[in-house]
Amino acid sequence: MNHQLTISLDAMGGDHGPETVIGGANIVLDRKPDLKFVIYGEQAVVGPVLDAYPRVRDASVFHDCEISISMEDKPSQALRRGRYKSGMWRAIEAVKNGEANVCISAGNTGALMAMSKFCLRTQSGITRPAMAAIWPTMTGESIVLDVGANVGADADQLVEYSVMGSAMARALFDFDRPSIGLLNIGVEEVKGVESVREAGALLREAKLETMNYHGFVEGDDLGKGTVDVVVTEGFAGNIALKTAEGTAKQIGEYLRAAMSRTILAKAGFILAKGAFDRLREKMDPRKVNGAVLLGLNGVVIKSHGGTDAEGFAAAIELGHDMVANHLMSKIEKDIENFSEIRIRLEKHAG
Amino acid sequence: MNHQLTISLDAMGGDHGPETVIGGANIVLDRKPDLKFVIYGEQAVVGPVLDAYPRVRDASVFHDCEISISMEDKPSQALRRGRYKSGMWRAIEAVKNGEANVCISAGNTGALMAMSKFCLRTQSGITRPAMAAIWPTMTGESIVLDVGANVGADADQLVEYSVMGSAMARALFDFDRPSIGLLNIGVEEVKGVESVREAGALLREAKLETMNYHGFVEGDDLGKGTVDVVVTEGFAGNIALKTAEGTAKQIGEYLRAAMSRTILAKAGFILAKGAFDRLREKMDPRKVNGAVLLGLNGVVIKSHGGTDAEGFAAAIELGHDMVANHLMSKIEKDIENFSEIRIRLEKHAG
Repeated sequence: MNHQLTISLDAMGGDHGPETVIGGANIVLDRKPDLKFVIYGEQAVVGPVLDAYPRVRDASVFHDCEISISMEDKPSQALRRGRYKSGMWRAIEAVKNGEANVCISAGNTGALMAMSKFCLRTQSGITRPAMAAIWPTMTGESIVLDVGANVGADADQLVEYSVMGSAMARALFDFDRPSIGLLNIGVEEVKGVESVREAGALLREAKLETMNYHGFVEGDDLGKGTVDVVVTEGFAGNIALKTAEGTAKQIGEYLRAAMSRTILAKAGFILAKGAFDRLREKMDPRKVNGAVLLGLNGVVIKSHGGTDAEGFAAAIELGHDMVANHLMSKIEKDIENFSEIRIRLEKHAG
Repeated sequence: MNHQLTISLDAMGGDHGPETVIGGANIVLDRKPDLKFVIYGEQAVVGPVLDAYPRVRDASVFHDCEISISMEDKPSQALRRGRYKSGMWRAIEAVKNGEANVCISAGNTGALMAMSKFCLRTQSGITRPAMAAIWPTMTGESIVLDVGANVGADADQLVEYSVMGSAMARALFDFDRPSIGLLNIGVEEVKGVESVREAGALLREAKLETMNYHGFVEGDDLGKGTVDVVVTEGFAGNIALKTAEGTAKQIGEYLRAAMSRTILAKAGFILAKGAFDRLREKMDPRKVNGAVLLGLNGVVIKSHGGTDAEGFAAAIELGHDMVANHLMSKIEKDIENFSEIRIRLEKHAG
């Protein structure tokens, strides 16, 4: 594994700004002391934080950027106002120029996607990028994509997502042939999911060596961890992701309320505190922080805007692992391979 | 409120068949002793169960039906095989013929929808029916539709769903002007959600007296209970519903595992048992069992297939409340009212 990786950081992104970003980098340096950073942001804000974390400062090159993208900017505004000169743009551009291997930002999702697409362009053979999230399951973790880079997807795009998701699974988990499921709804013979059925037929026929196509899965298979990679178009994927987050919070609230209602419950809570701590850790959204923008000429990681330094560190490490495990060349090779198989299948059919 | 309601029951539907259905009816008779039933199913299977519940038998007319729809039948198969003669069809037909006020089935969802549409036809002014679920939230309950009757919806259909959802909210909850939100994704300026934006503009402009249009909501607003009615097309709605169910199960598993790992945790669990019981009750899916098929010339309730008698009783009571509170005439009046407003708005715009 390459220990000389350089990571570009958008220091102004997220709800808590540089404190989270630089603090996260500092945590990662404990575990990966050889990492280098290029950091982009406003000198007046980022400078003092870097001074507070001398180890990060010493491992970094800092670039002062006068423009910062706010969480409220619309993607088009952000692009107009921040192209070429905002910290977010320049952090992405560092990947394009080869100054960094991967870019991490906790900033405005829409702006980050728009700028990443504009700056890095899509990888050869890919119609459009997708955003992939890591989903905690009963048995471990799965990858779910697209969680909101695009709305709608035709059969070919769902197949592309499947190929990219399988490449990401192999870069993230320790196995060669991840299982892939297409998200569908229980009701059969409904109109409008032809794209999903067509994608399923294509994947089944292609018999790719790099994935094990499982078939359709439903919303409740996400939490079960039925497959390693769940593929869907971005509208449903985004709603599924946020619904799960909301449900987890809701049940956490119920639990908190139940445990503080009576003296017996409070006493029970104290006795079982270790168990509750384990549960909290298990449900900790920081542990799986970071969504990967797949299909661009460069890897960009979106951290949750509201995360803390520990969560941002997880996003940095995710980015590190993606490039250290050759995500992009895996995608490139798999897409090429699929195209060849497809041409062969079409000849055969014709 | 009318105490002379008659409810038609598909006794063969669901994973546990007549035991659940008749058992559920028996529970409801405790609370609503004046209720009447018409029950459809196979004599050999249903007869003995009715004998075990003489109170239900005495409040019912039973019809022997030789054909039953299985949970595996595809909607088209079910329609071909079971039209006119299956228990499911005849339970729906009882509503059409005026022999019953509402039909409840725990059977095959796709078959129930297909038969209901075919038998009852859509209400005047409605393009197509939608399935509405009751969603437990941090603050109470919301209504979510469409959870899978159709895939995709244009702006006009989303407005129809909003009007139907608001009518259902007024029939279910005790207030006159429920708040309505359109489910959307966080990323702005994405393509493909024009239908949602257009529906939002229509609802905002129409200023209906029967609803308070809130604007867009995201997946995590479902659990928060941000609005009383959440409207979305059926693919995303179904995935959201199943994702939430799956997440709740997953966290329940985590909790169970955490509470049985150590002796201290087990002791704490015993002390706090009352609190855990409350939590279990709060998360009990049986309490909110029953989805309403909206927009047909008759009310049909889909009970969860895997529920027990207590859950089926909740579905019966939901059906009872829907007809007792005049769901269909509310929808009819609101749709008419909306059409008039729309014509006025269009004249004004022209």
